[in-house]
Amino acid sequence: MQTNKPTIHTCFSPALLHLYDLSNAVVVIIDVFRATSTIAAALYNGAKCVIPVDEVAKAIEISKQIDGIAAGERDGKLAEGLQHGNSPLEYSKDFIKDKTLVLTTTNGTKLLQMALDNKASTIITGSFPNLSAVCTFLINENKNVVLGCAGWKDRFNLEDTLFAGAVIAKIKESFTIHCDSSLTAELLYNQHKDNLIDFASTLTHYHRLVERFGLIEDIKFCLTPDGANVLPLYENGKLTTN
Amino acid sequence: MQTNKPTIHTCFSPALLHLYDLSNAVVVIIDVFRATSTIAAALYNGAKCVIPVDEVAKAIEISKQIDGIAAGERDGKLAEGLQHGNSPLEYSKDFIKDKTLVLTTTNGTKLLQMALDNKASTIITGSFPNLSAVCTFLINENKNVVLGCAGWKDRFNLEDTLFAGAVIAKIKESFTIHCDSSLTAELLYNQHKDNLIDFASTLTHYHRLVERFGLIEDIKFCLTPDGANVLPLYENGKLTTN
Repeated sequence: MQTNKPTIHTCFSPALLHLYDLSNAVVVIIDVFRATSTIAAALYNGAKCVIPVDEVAKAIEISKQIDGIAAGERDGKLAEGLQHGNSPLEYSKDFIKDKTLVLTTTNGTKLLQMALDNKASTIITGSFPNLSAVCTFLINENKNVVLGCAGWKDRFNLEDTLFAGAVIAKIKESFTIHCDSSLTAELLYNQHKDNLIDFASTLTHYHRLVERFGLIEDIKFCLTPDGANVLPLYENGKLTTN
Repeated sequence: MQTNKPTIHTCFSPALLHLYDLSNAVVVIIDVFRATSTIAAALYNGAKCVIPVDEVAKAIEISKQIDGIAAGERDGKLAEGLQHGNSPLEYSKDFIKDKTLVLTTTNGTKLLQMALDNKASTIITGSFPNLSAVCTFLINENKNVVLGCAGWKDRFNLEDTLFAGAVIAKIKESFTIHCDSSLTAELLYNQHKDNLIDFASTLTHYHRLVERFGLIEDIKFCLTPDGANVLPLYENGKLTTN
């Protein structure tokens, strides 16, 4: 009997988040290309914390106040007024250790704010670089899970869905799943897990990032499991690994 | 070069419909279990027309005015106050020929109304029983297409997605597709097209319909191609095949 196990639901778009009860759940914010990959990389490389914000002006203001690094993107490229973007490869240990990253992005940081507004019990961020850390945390917490895909401007995207599927494939024995989105995510992941980077070339966001901006190394990092295997937990306005 | 071909987008939920430009597009309303399967069956069996409405009271009122048959469901079962439900198998030729069906359902008729409100250029309804008729129409129209999945109370569902995938698999050579939802729909359909009815037993809506209401014959009809191969076109408040 599975009735005593907690549930997993997968939410394909920020515009559908209101359909799920977050009040007693762990919400995993998923923005594979690239916000939640960048958050994992920065924290793995020793950043003190990451402060996600929704506006460029706010990122600049907060980073000045705390002597942090303002960074982010809009529409896949460096946001106007910022010197640092949303590439996980920018945040090497030499650059980011002991610093605070103040990050604003098109989709991922917006979804995180929405999860807060919808009274999520616990918020973490996930992407392939910290897949195992996310799975371990979810199993240990033993609470309901909502896998929140950031998508692209409220549209469904495949890369976030594939990560949701990877999580489900690893932890489903510990949960009750009665959710077509979760079933779809797992089916897609199982179909493509052995060739994720090749498969990525068919995705809309791949064209945006690689053909326009040449970011193939970013794509590889973002789709490779456990390259920055930390658990970013959101508390008091900050993501930290403590 | 594909640049002169019209586009296909797949919309996974009524709550995402506003993200798509319907103003110069054919919108296919998809509610496989069971509204758009029932619409195909009724028209195939000689119904004069189907009038989709959003409320039970409205269905009763209109059917009285025009001597039609008020029918519909809420939450998968016969709506209170109605004598006829949302099963395609109810609408045999003996029963429905030359009559008008006034139909209200949880998801499909709601989405149709939303497509109207969003100024869709052309609205048709589709499900497996009229798969070929839908595909032929879309190729002949040569306009942009939005495959609108009705889902379940705004949540993603797999059966509507599978039908979107079946359409895409048949007509994609005539269209430009740059949409992760469409790619997903086609991948899922290709993975399961040879065992749709077996696969259906894993879907959330299957449990709702079969375990609670015993509707396995409905499921089989709704997932079998071309059992009622007509093209329901919405004009002036009515779906007809003319």
